[in-house]
Amino acid sequence: MGPETDQAPGWLTEQEIGEARERLPIVYVEAVPVRVDHLGRVERVGLLLRSRPDGTISRAIVSGRVLYREPVRDALWRHLSKDLGAEAEPRLPASPTPLTVVEYFPEPSPSGYTDPRQHAVALVYLVPVDGRCAPSQDALDLAWVTPEEAVSDGVVGEMSGGQDRVVRLALAHAGCLR
Amino acid sequence: MGPETDQAPGWLTEQEIGEARERLPIVYVEAVPVRVDHLGRVERVGLLLRSRPDGTISRAIVSGRVLYREPVRDALWRHLSKDLGAEAEPRLPASPTPLTVVEYFPEPSPSGYTDPRQHAVALVYLVPVDGRCAPSQDALDLAWVTPEEAVSDGVVGEMSGGQDRVVRLALAHAGCLR
Amino acid sequence: MGPETDQAPGWLTEQEIGEARERLPIVYVEAVPVRVDHLGRVERVGLLLRSRPDGTISRAIVSGRVLYREPVRDALWRHLSKDLGAEAEPRLPASPTPLTVVEYFPEPSPSGYTDPRQHAVALVYLVPVDGRCAPSQDALDLAWVTPEEAVSDGVVGEMSGGQDRVVRLALAHAGCLR
Amino acid sequence: MGPETDQAPGWLTEQEIGEARERLPIVYVEAVPVRVDHLGRVERVGLLLRSRPDGTISRAIVSGRVLYREPVRDALWRHLSKDLGAEAEPRLPASPTPLTVVEYFPEPSPSGYTDPRQHAVALVYLVPVDGRCAPSQDALDLAWVTPEEAVSDGVVGEMSGGQDRVVRLALAHAGCLR
Repeated sequence: MGPETDQAPGWLTEQEIGEARERLPIVYVEAVPVRVDHLGRVERVGLLLRSRPDGTISRAIVSGRVLYREPVRDALWRHLSKDLGAEAEPRLPASPTPLTVVEYFPEPSPSGYTDPRQHAVALVYLVPVDGRCAPSQDALDLAWVTPEEAVSDGVVGEMSGGQDRVVRLALAHAGCLR
Repeated sequence: MGPETDQAPGWLTEQEIGEARERLPIVYVEAVPVRVDHLGRVERVGLLLRSRPDGTISRAIVSGRVLYREPVRDALWRHLSKDLGAEAEPRLPASPTPLTVVEYFPEPSPSGYTDPRQHAVALVYLVPVDGRCAPSQDALDLAWVTPEEAVSDGVVGEMSGGQDRVVRLALAHAGCLR
Repeated sequence: MGPETDQAPGWLTEQEIGEARERLPIVYVEAVPVRVDHLGRVERVGLLLRSRPDGTISRAIVSGRVLYREPVRDALWRHLSKDLGAEAEPRLPASPTPLTVVEYFPEPSPSGYTDPRQHAVALVYLVPVDGRCAPSQDALDLAWVTPEEAVSDGVVGEMSGGQDRVVRLALAHAGCLR
Repeated sequence: MGPETDQAPGWLTEQEIGEARERLPIVYVEAVPVRVDHLGRVERVGLLLRSRPDGTISRAIVSGRVLYREPVRDALWRHLSKDLGAEAEPRLPASPTPLTVVEYFPEPSPSGYTDPRQHAVALVYLVPVDGRCAPSQDALDLAWVTPEEAVSDGVVGEMSGGQDRVVRLALAHAGCLR
């Protein structure tokens, strides 16, 4: 049971969220988890590994929607904790300004970002993570790759919806794009 | 009739948007219109004037929601054109990164930003405007005030929902907060 | 003996830096140290206390110049460690983009930022600090004040050169300016 | 005669600037000129063409130092006007915050940005340009290329010091990096 099926007042049933997704842009938060050294330089990028129905492996960043009356910071914390485990110690940014805004559309679009389920407007953050990470049951594993590996053809080929570009934008923001 | 009553497929009736507003955070764009000199320095801030039912005057920035399948840039352009007129020539930012994200909640909240109608997540932009502005029928007028006036007690007292703080954040972003 | 008198090749004697300060803009880094909660929200702002020759107390943020061939990150780390102590555990930002750029001029200027010694171009960062802080001999103490106190008239009156405005810009960047 | 040989008080002779360059980081501004559409989307990137002594062509962005007592905005305007011509109409950003900070070191360095003349700390801006551009005598021409072309192997191979990466970071900032 994920939070989207919670029955708190004002939240949505699966059917209702399905209907809303055909009518309204949905607010998302996305986080690119990174390991940084003491000077703040990115050393590793965390990518979730998920198995696809066809047996191939898919890689993804942390991503999820913001609930009704939920502050963006709480949503970011909730999704990071769920995907990286309770001991992950994500360092949420002091500024609410995302590094970029990415718009996912339900079909191929000029933006190049797609999500067949919905039109999502995602606030993207780069989040240094300090603690031990233990991916949840949704993910097979969490791989910490170098910035170079994160934008390599092999890794890019395992991501979908344009998330490889989100990783690239996050690394550019950190000044470590080659 | 505003765009929210348009009947294009996937858009919402007034009733449906009313229901969604009680269930989901709504994506908003907000723009603080400014006049800048040739060096980009803010000289004036544009504030819309609206008359309240009680006869007092209310001041506001440009603000409105993003429609289903509408890119954020298009929404920003649409609301700026509607509020400032077709000849306003807003200079939309080349970067999609807002200067800040402001969260309006339906009742008094720690964030200090409120909107009795909904939980809105607003992407805020500072938008230089070059052309002649002719406010739409919704607004009485558009006043161009100095940055100092824009954060003065008199002007702040005429704004609502926390938009005076949005103006302050926009001026801080421009480096011209005193 | 501060780093500015070190005799490493390419560095400057006190006389040489004095001459350069009359001829060139000097690159500075400035850090506003903050305590944040687990969601990244600013709870306290760290202000250094220094005694002035006239016996009054002056408050300041962390500030210092970047040396020849010294990366900006290293300069930031060096000044934070010197002013807050070796155990301060500053969390340097993953992005090299400062929250703002502040220009100090040697005499009263339109910018409102002054430094009688020089023309300095300062890259300003908001830096969460986790560890125990023990201010160096240059400072009497380090006071952790609330964001509200940090921009109060009392505190502002004890800062100089426009650093009170730097604090204000940093808090605006963090979205917690009232 | 470039501005660096001007004899205004406080400015430097060629010999003095040469000496300073061996001792201090030098403040630079860099601008990536772009053509944008009415929604602010980048359509073209402007690259200066210069002929090298060996007859090959070199491409570059607008770049130059900040003079003593010169505000960053004035320096940006001065270098853009010099390189793109007096009719260029650059739209300087309302915010002083650069999109990134790039550090050039006098020899191969971990940053990957090099400038054999000096250690330069460059504030990088993305600058939409509206008017007619007529490159100065220092440049052969100004080529307006698409974002895709700007990061293609052919163009990257004609840039030096790491400026191809500056272009890439600027396009990432604009959200249009593929």
